[in-house]
Amino acid sequence: MTKNSSGEKTNTLMESIIGLCKRRGFIFASSEIYGGYNGFFDYGPIGVELRNNIKNIWWRDMVQRRDDIVGLDSSIIMHPSIWKASGHVDGFSDPMVDCKESKLRYRADQLFVYPVELNGSTLGYIASIEGSDLNSRVKQAKKLRDLLDKKQSKLNESLLDSNPTEFPEINTKQRSQTLGPDASKCDTLTEPREFKLMFETKVGPLADQSATAYLRPETAQGIFANYKNIVDTGRVKIPFGIAQIGKAFRNEITPRNFIFRSREFEQMEIEYFIDPDADWEKLHREWLDTCIAWLTSIGIPKEKISEDIHSKDKLAFYSQATTDLMFDFPHGKQELWGIACRSNYDLSQHQNHSGKSMEIFDESKKAKYIPHVIEPSLGVDRTLLAVLTSAYDEDEIPNDKGAVEKRIVLRFSPKIAPYKAAVFPLVKNKPELVEIAQKIYKQLQKRWNVFYDASGAIGRRYRRQDEIGTPYGITIDFDTLEKDGSVTLRDRDTTEQKRMNLEEVFKFLEHKIDG
Amino acid sequence: MTKNSSGEKTNTLMESIIGLCKRRGFIFASSEIYGGYNGFFDYGPIGVELRNNIKNIWWRDMVQRRDDIVGLDSSIIMHPSIWKASGHVDGFSDPMVDCKESKLRYRADQLFVYPVELNGSTLGYIASIEGSDLNSRVKQAKKLRDLLDKKQSKLNESLLDSNPTEFPEINTKQRSQTLGPDASKCDTLTEPREFKLMFETKVGPLADQSATAYLRPETAQGIFANYKNIVDTGRVKIPFGIAQIGKAFRNEITPRNFIFRSREFEQMEIEYFIDPDADWEKLHREWLDTCIAWLTSIGIPKEKISEDIHSKDKLAFYSQATTDLMFDFPHGKQELWGIACRSNYDLSQHQNHSGKSMEIFDESKKAKYIPHVIEPSLGVDRTLLAVLTSAYDEDEIPNDKGAVEKRIVLRFSPKIAPYKAAVFPLVKNKPELVEIAQKIYKQLQKRWNVFYDASGAIGRRYRRQDEIGTPYGITIDFDTLEKDGSVTLRDRDTTEQKRMNLEEVFKFLEHKIDG
Repeated sequence: MTKNSSGEKTNTLMESIIGLCKRRGFIFASSEIYGGYNGFFDYGPIGVELRNNIKNIWWRDMVQRRDDIVGLDSSIIMHPSIWKASGHVDGFSDPMVDCKESKLRYRADQLFVYPVELNGSTLGYIASIEGSDLNSRVKQAKKLRDLLDKKQSKLNESLLDSNPTEFPEINTKQRSQTLGPDASKCDTLTEPREFKLMFETKVGPLADQSATAYLRPETAQGIFANYKNIVDTGRVKIPFGIAQIGKAFRNEITPRNFIFRSREFEQMEIEYFIDPDADWEKLHREWLDTCIAWLTSIGIPKEKISEDIHSKDKLAFYSQATTDLMFDFPHGKQELWGIACRSNYDLSQHQNHSGKSMEIFDESKKAKYIPHVIEPSLGVDRTLLAVLTSAYDEDEIPNDKGAVEKRIVLRFSPKIAPYKAAVFPLVKNKPELVEIAQKIYKQLQKRWNVFYDASGAIGRRYRRQDEIGTPYGITIDFDTLEKDGSVTLRDRDTTEQKRMNLEEVFKFLEHKIDG
Repeated sequence: MTKNSSGEKTNTLMESIIGLCKRRGFIFASSEIYGGYNGFFDYGPIGVELRNNIKNIWWRDMVQRRDDIVGLDSSIIMHPSIWKASGHVDGFSDPMVDCKESKLRYRADQLFVYPVELNGSTLGYIASIEGSDLNSRVKQAKKLRDLLDKKQSKLNESLLDSNPTEFPEINTKQRSQTLGPDASKCDTLTEPREFKLMFETKVGPLADQSATAYLRPETAQGIFANYKNIVDTGRVKIPFGIAQIGKAFRNEITPRNFIFRSREFEQMEIEYFIDPDADWEKLHREWLDTCIAWLTSIGIPKEKISEDIHSKDKLAFYSQATTDLMFDFPHGKQELWGIACRSNYDLSQHQNHSGKSMEIFDESKKAKYIPHVIEPSLGVDRTLLAVLTSAYDEDEIPNDKGAVEKRIVLRFSPKIAPYKAAVFPLVKNKPELVEIAQKIYKQLQKRWNVFYDASGAIGRRYRRQDEIGTPYGITIDFDTLEKDGSVTLRDRDTTEQKRMNLEEVFKFLEHKIDG
């Protein structure tokens, strides 16, 4: 398991988030009554609202409020030729290594091999998973030393902290001398073999090879496959983008880190088509800034976002540049949003394979060309995990009796909070109070997703809403009834309460939620 | 091909809708550049907005504005045991008949066999597809007569209009004497055999039987599988419902009628859990009324909706009742929304297969039971086709020069229209006019999805919006600039124009769209 610099604490954070998600109906393991199903998750009543809010706001900001981007919703199963053209049929696989002893399986490119040296001579090797720390490698090296009955010799620890070799690079002899991450003896790791990541199925009544189809491993190719239809019917002008939100599937060898790497996930992708002669570096930078601004607009703090510029040797031959926006997840800094400059590779491939021209006529240049593309690609589930990570907090506030109590609170931005407000009648056995509370609730509900809760002490009701991130609590009390109709509005984060009349409440919420 | 009572005209309507959908970017055949992919469709820039509006309004009305229904978003691929428990692994198949001559394939339960009688003796049989008319059957019978060199004999046509036999009911000898719908001789149809409708795939690194998984053929089972988690964490009380919107997949033998029957589709399903002793007939009727009211609220005329009550012998043994809301599609009256009373069958099955109790404690009765369920199940794509069918119209209006011109118009309800309004500067070469138009456009865009169009004669711009169903056109003209800032608001259906100030425009739209 990968840890970031703060070690133990981060795993506690992940555990707290997972626990809260299950307890309050954000996220369940899929098929839990049948023991779960590795790599699949279900979004419960609160989670689905959060998820929908993230998707809807992305769509609003990227499609509806922009004049240069149109939307699309292509099918998950598409013609298999699309995946031939895109290179996925032949190339979309991970090299995989099995441990014959533990039956565990590793991605070969995430296994790193370090030499173990005693008194100047190499005793053997250890294979360690990407992101392991020096401590665990030293432990593993000692295990190898003990295995080989060399307890008395001094281990050269410096080699365990220097440049390792990727597993696929070592030779057969070295492999036979390697101790795997979960093995008790050497030579349990197999040679890497390619493991296809696309889920296959058969479409149509025949079960032969011609019927083979794939669940899309990305939404992007659905965009390229519809590019021509949109250019022909959509009155688009360069530069323009096509955006899509939808499910994608990858048969991951090791799904892990909760919803970060699952086998079924959802993407929000844009292909932004530009003039091949345009200043792509400038446009790439603009997209990075747009993406960062969007993340911060939904409440992800800027200081948790960093940029990882892919080095030239990591890029595909056709790619000009890729920068990943990294987020500080509980399990470490990992990719959240990839922004890639992919030249005209995909469209050219589809032009070659389909025989259909992918050229566009640029009015302003009076010239035809296949446009280049910038691809900002974001995962819904990863965004949701980043949002949860950013929002999760524990603090202490006074309870109904004035004693200080620990509180779990999700500090969601009101824009994406599952419920925008909760309405509480102070007591539930006073019909006039309940009647007004219901009336206010129904009025608010016409505009936003709001919650009504009449049972339990008011402090407990606040706390229940804090835990699911409802930013505002609106309490109807005896003053509402007997005086001016005003209510109290409680702020989740400060726990401060203000009296407001209803018109002020609406204006306030409008400003906070839709502003 | 099925036709409804108005015959030819209905197919023309379907063709017009399909043509418009492609031309204006509502719906494309999937993978069109590779020749299309049978049973799969992509939603283009305008179609995806319409689709999202339908889904969002359904969710708002069925989940967010109700206190007795919560939402869910379960995974498409779930534990295979779920489909074992639900009965889909063993039972979800269609009986299929092949024609050895034409290579066409028919669903056996949609093939009807009629005896062909000449001068009182049976000559043979014809097999005809469900929904064929008497005319085509007479033609087919004459073909059989001619085949057997009995041209001179008189055909008993009355038998071709009476109760046929379903294909699976005839015996081998009769089958050998049957002329198929697309055959030129007898005995070309095979015996029916079961064809599995669930798409299979393999999950995980192993490719053996244990890895077999399924793409869900319905979203309903995802609800039953999560019922226990929601009962345990959601503070729900009987009666309550769980709602879900999501993709489902069926390997249909004969996908047809555009998006009506496709292999990848989207469902909006509710499982509404009730006390086993409740008056289910009353609740069933209430759900039917709720569903009809919802359909009319998005602009589907009540007179195009009818009810089909399933006869007792068509129901599964556990089912108390099912009524389908039928819609008058261009290809005939077909199921749009099925509302089924499924007893506690599904939950009991999952209790038996998972070993987990599906009982709920009913506070009001102080008793435990497995609830019964009412299931309103609606297809997104079918709803969209019903909406398109209801909205499609051709009329005649005067053009810019006063001559009468044919117009295609989609009379969408403003609630679901892809664009709520279009903003037009009267001319595009007057910067002050364009500036105000842009300002108004941006203001409207903060609230709704609106379109901006500055190019072409104003009449043509109106017409382009009529064709995609934009209910209102807002034109900024010289009076806006030089007088009072008022604009003209044109109504798509009446083509009438009114001058309004901006505040009135906002109020008007608010009332029409969100009211």
